[in-house]
Amino acid sequence: MDGNGNYTTQMDAARKGIVTPQMKIVAEKEKMSAERIRKLVAEGKAVICANRRHTCLDPEGVGSMLRTKVNVNLGVSRDCKDYEIEMEKVMSAVKLGAEAIMDLSSHGNTQPFRRKLTAQCPVMIGTVPVYDSVIYYQRDLSTLSAKDFVDVVRLHAEDGVDFVTLHCGITRKTMEQIRTHKRKMNIVSRGGSLVFAWMSMTGAENPFYEHFDEILDICEEYDVTVSLGDACRPGCLADATDVCQIEELVRLGELTKRAWAHNVQVMVEGPGHVPLHQVAANMEIQKSVCMGAPFYVLGPLVTDIAPGYDHITGAIGGAVAAMHGAAFLCYVTPAEHLALPGVEDVKQGIIASKIAAHAADIAKGIPGAEERDGRMAEARRALDWEAQFACALDPETARAIRDSRKPEDDHSDTCSMCGKFCAVRSMNKALAGEAVDIL
Amino acid sequence: MDGNGNYTTQMDAARKGIVTPQMKIVAEKEKMSAERIRKLVAEGKAVICANRRHTCLDPEGVGSMLRTKVNVNLGVSRDCKDYEIEMEKVMSAVKLGAEAIMDLSSHGNTQPFRRKLTAQCPVMIGTVPVYDSVIYYQRDLSTLSAKDFVDVVRLHAEDGVDFVTLHCGITRKTMEQIRTHKRKMNIVSRGGSLVFAWMSMTGAENPFYEHFDEILDICEEYDVTVSLGDACRPGCLADATDVCQIEELVRLGELTKRAWAHNVQVMVEGPGHVPLHQVAANMEIQKSVCMGAPFYVLGPLVTDIAPGYDHITGAIGGAVAAMHGAAFLCYVTPAEHLALPGVEDVKQGIIASKIAAHAADIAKGIPGAEERDGRMAEARRALDWEAQFACALDPETARAIRDSRKPEDDHSDTCSMCGKFCAVRSMNKALAGEAVDIL
Repeated sequence: MDGNGNYTTQMDAARKGIVTPQMKIVAEKEKMSAERIRKLVAEGKAVICANRRHTCLDPEGVGSMLRTKVNVNLGVSRDCKDYEIEMEKVMSAVKLGAEAIMDLSSHGNTQPFRRKLTAQCPVMIGTVPVYDSVIYYQRDLSTLSAKDFVDVVRLHAEDGVDFVTLHCGITRKTMEQIRTHKRKMNIVSRGGSLVFAWMSMTGAENPFYEHFDEILDICEEYDVTVSLGDACRPGCLADATDVCQIEELVRLGELTKRAWAHNVQVMVEGPGHVPLHQVAANMEIQKSVCMGAPFYVLGPLVTDIAPGYDHITGAIGGAVAAMHGAAFLCYVTPAEHLALPGVEDVKQGIIASKIAAHAADIAKGIPGAEERDGRMAEARRALDWEAQFACALDPETARAIRDSRKPEDDHSDTCSMCGKFCAVRSMNKALAGEAVDIL
Repeated sequence: MDGNGNYTTQMDAARKGIVTPQMKIVAEKEKMSAERIRKLVAEGKAVICANRRHTCLDPEGVGSMLRTKVNVNLGVSRDCKDYEIEMEKVMSAVKLGAEAIMDLSSHGNTQPFRRKLTAQCPVMIGTVPVYDSVIYYQRDLSTLSAKDFVDVVRLHAEDGVDFVTLHCGITRKTMEQIRTHKRKMNIVSRGGSLVFAWMSMTGAENPFYEHFDEILDICEEYDVTVSLGDACRPGCLADATDVCQIEELVRLGELTKRAWAHNVQVMVEGPGHVPLHQVAANMEIQKSVCMGAPFYVLGPLVTDIAPGYDHITGAIGGAVAAMHGAAFLCYVTPAEHLALPGVEDVKQGIIASKIAAHAADIAKGIPGAEERDGRMAEARRALDWEAQFACALDPETARAIRDSRKPEDDHSDTCSMCGKFCAVRSMNKALAGEAVDIL
């Protein structure tokens, strides 16, 4: 309940006709009326991930009709244990425009870092409780009980996490499908593989599926948005849009309804590796099966053969996905499939995702999306380099490239790419009736 | 005429029912019958850019139904005069998979480098004669005559160039349109701006338009493919698909017919800066107006605000363009709009374009396109790292990233991204009925 006891979650408020402070902020950012945002949240078509304990949050909405948001995965692990370095990455990610951080920490005592995030970080914080379960109890996976898993969800909710990925859609039936369908890559979702392994070793049903109502009660209490994980997302083009993926999606559609019945906000996670011509269809199927719940995609990566460049394969897929309805892009770094991302990888991953998100926002006609591009065009025509840098997604990099290789005769109006052959310079002169000197 | 005097161009041969040696090679590369290639060349839907003097050429076909090809722009300029460095870039581009090199040299004596390219380089060589005209005569642009321009086209044809960009579609009528339509960026095509400036200063009609038939005779004699330049390609999102661009495209459609009447092969150049939702429409319009002549696009860049990252904005646009019918992608480097590309920029630009081309080829169902992705998936499931590197577009970079940050406990089977949380490892164990150890 809010301070006045009027509502539990943003969805509950929206359904009761209450415009929350968070809705007002989101409405301003999206250049929409607060009433429109309220309606979208009530219908489940937009979510505002805002745990009531995450008081320093600057809220954002996630929905296909809103600006496309970008998530950054970080967190300490066995091979990168330094919390200070990880916090630096977080703050640099926020500065670069990430709207969410998922803390995927998988080593040591994870709670202090998680609490630090929800105490200091203004963007949405997400976690994957099943990773943390193994770490938290420091016991073999097979010895954990269903209750153990649920307790970790509660712990994360209490710590102020705004959304949690729950791999609820993979059931014992799916296990059979994975075994018989003979995918090339089986399951590539880390959380999904843990749930599969647990079910495999214990013989029991998926605890997140079996105890979904109990989990929903926790999520409603703290207003934690459920991000329905796609354990069966394709890990290669050959597995895309197969029966394993689509059957899980159908399950996620059912679970969406159940969450909404508890006034719990829902996002649905999606692929994965998908050939370019299947991306639009994947978005349409999700929209229809999950009744417009915001779609949160990892990539999609449009080819398997570019390790070292998967921020680019992800930007291609992400732009097309968002144009066709994905609301939330999980960044992919150049280190994907190869190593833990370093600081520079994180930067490259965020910028590639921001480009994809922005290109899609323009394509979708999001209010105001094209304004900055218009300013850049004006600055380019005027050959005003400072104004160009001011409009750039990464001004420092743009400036460094131009400055490192200025034209020899240092015309301040051109750059070394074309020198005096610069088309903009020639056209400005020609249209002004001046002689155009090239030599 | 060929050695036996049977045909002039590949198109002439194709129309006479002759399967040329070049067609046989292209057919093998494309996993198609030589007869199918012959028919496509006869119809103008595919071109084989092969100047009869470029004898070291390993021919490639360009057409929407063939593998998408990638062009790399290089050449010396006032700010990078070293021919040796430029030749190194050329050979590294070929090694990275570029199917064409455009020599845009704009400084000094350009002929030796051009001749070196057609003497030693096995990929298609293209040029833009209007750039070279200014350099070749070393006279002010306004003092050049129409004949001077035509003579440079002849010179390039004699030097063995496989395709030439000719900005024929911009006429005095277009000049009026540019003046009255008030585009944000006017003309950003270097060649287009030179032609505009020349027309502006001399009051004469576009020499490449006025003397098109004479130029076609030259092109027929040597079998030079005409690449119809898009002087009015949009230089910012706001100018995309506007009346200036589309009117020029209509002109290019007319010129395509005239070239085909001379048995001269034609490609049509296209945008430019285009919002993502307009890319597919641009491809459809070109196909229809230019009767299926192969479309050669620069980008398209799907946002204006990412200087320093335009290889990514171009990869997004290029992948979608090629999926919808573009046949040939001109690479874009991270230095676009800022500076001359260095060796590393060239590499980044090529790989981004190769990713876009490959993603589109899979989407288009090009025979065999997905095979390498399939092998990568098998290698990933087997956690066979050497096999993964062997399938990678850039094996050295992939290996360097993994090796620089190996997992601490050096499991050879995983990487530091997930360590023992590796989903592939967990699944392999679970499916084999083994215990899954995470801690």
